[in-house]
Amino acid sequence: MKAIVTIMLKNGVLDPQGKAIGHALNNLGFDQVGEVRMGKVIELELTETDAANAKEAAEEMARKLLANTVIESFKVEIVG
Amino acid sequence: MKAIVTIMLKNGVLDPQGKAIGHALNNLGFDQVGEVRMGKVIELELTETDAANAKEAAEEMARKLLANTVIESFKVEIVG
Repeated sequence: MKAIVTIMLKNGVLDPQGKAIGHALNNLGFDQVGEVRMGKVIELELTETDAANAKEAAEEMARKLLANTVIESFKVEIVG
Repeated sequence: MKAIVTIMLKNGVLDPQGKAIGHALNNLGFDQVGEVRMGKVIELELTETDAANAKEAAEEMARKLLANTVIESFKVEIVG
């Protein structure tokens, strides 16, 4: 199965990378762009065949290694 | 509306960051992890109210600034 872990900075945590992208888009003439937030996405190929187990394992990986839960939140999606 | 742009390296492009994450997970005892690919996700707050227009605008932004289409592919999702 494939697990997709999406990691974003928590609300309230300053996101300078997102701000820079927002400014660059505005400067390119994209006036409709307001707030921009940037995050990471990690696709994990798992040998696990049970979706519930795969989700649990991926969440544990996110908590232990992938995300810094002090400033980041994550969500796990199982596909395939 | 909110547009979510997900940018991944194209298949066949080496992803050392993903490889490093995979090794780290294996070392932590997560043996079920195979290939790992890492990408970026960018959430754009748009003043656009029409979903089709918003998607088109976000795709143009991805092509012009957000993604390096030589080595990266992107997908745009409109939410809310």
